[in-house]
Amino acid sequence: MADTIDSLTRRICAFCDERDWAQYHNPKEMAVAIAAEAGELLQHFVWQSNEQSLERVSDRRAAIASEMADVAILLFEMADRCGIDLTQAITDKLAANAERYPVAKAKGSNKKYNEL
Amino acid sequence: MADTIDSLTRRICAFCDERDWAQYHNPKEMAVAIAAEAGELLQHFVWQSNEQSLERVSDRRAAIASEMADVAILLFEMADRCGIDLTQAITDKLAANAERYPVAKAKGSNKKYNEL
Amino acid sequence: MADTIDSLTRRICAFCDERDWAQYHNPKEMAVAIAAEAGELLQHFVWQSNEQSLERVSDRRAAIASEMADVAILLFEMADRCGIDLTQAITDKLAANAERYPVAKAKGSNKKYNEL
Amino acid sequence: MADTIDSLTRRICAFCDERDWAQYHNPKEMAVAIAAEAGELLQHFVWQSNEQSLERVSDRRAAIASEMADVAILLFEMADRCGIDLTQAITDKLAANAERYPVAKAKGSNKKYNEL
Repeated sequence: MADTIDSLTRRICAFCDERDWAQYHNPKEMAVAIAAEAGELLQHFVWQSNEQSLERVSDRRAAIASEMADVAILLFEMADRCGIDLTQAITDKLAANAERYPVAKAKGSNKKYNEL
Repeated sequence: MADTIDSLTRRICAFCDERDWAQYHNPKEMAVAIAAEAGELLQHFVWQSNEQSLERVSDRRAAIASEMADVAILLFEMADRCGIDLTQAITDKLAANAERYPVAKAKGSNKKYNEL
Repeated sequence: MADTIDSLTRRICAFCDERDWAQYHNPKEMAVAIAAEAGELLQHFVWQSNEQSLERVSDRRAAIASEMADVAILLFEMADRCGIDLTQAITDKLAANAERYPVAKAKGSNKKYNEL
Repeated sequence: MADTIDSLTRRICAFCDERDWAQYHNPKEMAVAIAAEAGELLQHFVWQSNEQSLERVSDRRAAIASEMADVAILLFEMADRCGIDLTQAITDKLAANAERYPVAKAKGSNKKYNEL
């Protein structure tokens, strides 16, 4: 789809503003809601092996997509309310990760950059 | 910026594939990493009042943007590996929320849809 | 050690009361802090295989013990402030789990009780 | 009640061992489960004000006690499987906190020790 993070964010913020929710949506509350939704996403995989997690995705794709959408919606709105350009932040992070994880060192490794 | 979730996702997955990380990036591990990064984002606001959280964003905007980018990057990659179109899932969720939270009932309220 | 949850809780609450922290320690803030500390504990294991996680515990036992203590301290205090007897709640939960997970059905299985 | 963390832990581990669950209960999986349960606890308070959170506890005390018991049960078992004496870890942490947060500096403040 052709939607950018920006265009989705405008729709999300319009939705919230129509409902007068800005009063509840300060950065802290948004971070709390994101953590809670990330917890709901995690719930689907607790005690499952990595192999079973693939099966779980087949069995529950709609439910998992819905939890992931919840995290994304909150994240896009939070960025907007914090004056953060999320697309730029992602681009910057990818550039930082390219320096932290050079292919020659990081290939095939699950180590953190400061342990490589 | 003109990047779509799709175009960002392609860059993220190319980054991981160059490093042979698909072996670690099954749905479960992605959900675990997302929860851990959401926890790091939350750390910035623990014990802070809602008002203080605005100040915190001014003081730590770059660090907070960086945590948010981490969550987004993992979320976009996870959706791709799960065969989930995240833009579509967000659009579907906004439509579902519009039904769950009609303006007339939800305006100015912080209640969950099943308590409205 | 002979300390009960109760005796530890009394020490924790005395510590907080001496510092006038009750004003910050309402149930919501406690739940937020517990989630953030659980996230810190999780950080130690992100991207690690189950086997690697055993090694990690050997390498970082003191740090992991310290994160676990943080979760426990907050949990004990939160229970007290909510008028919840945590020892009783644990005992009740173990009894409920014994019914939900009868040995004959649950032995060797990682399924949730509603899937057994 | 007179139960210590140790005596509760012995009951919890016996429960799991009868069900052959040690194979699933490595440190990583325990940390994942703790984060997921902490997320469930947090769910009860999302978007609620601190004042509303007190009401929520009155309305849902049994459910909240049950989530808290889940976190505690997993935490006690994880400590045991990691060779960590949780009572000792709590005692050590309280001693460390007493140094980090001297009453004279920390009284009435919600700042972190490294910001005091």
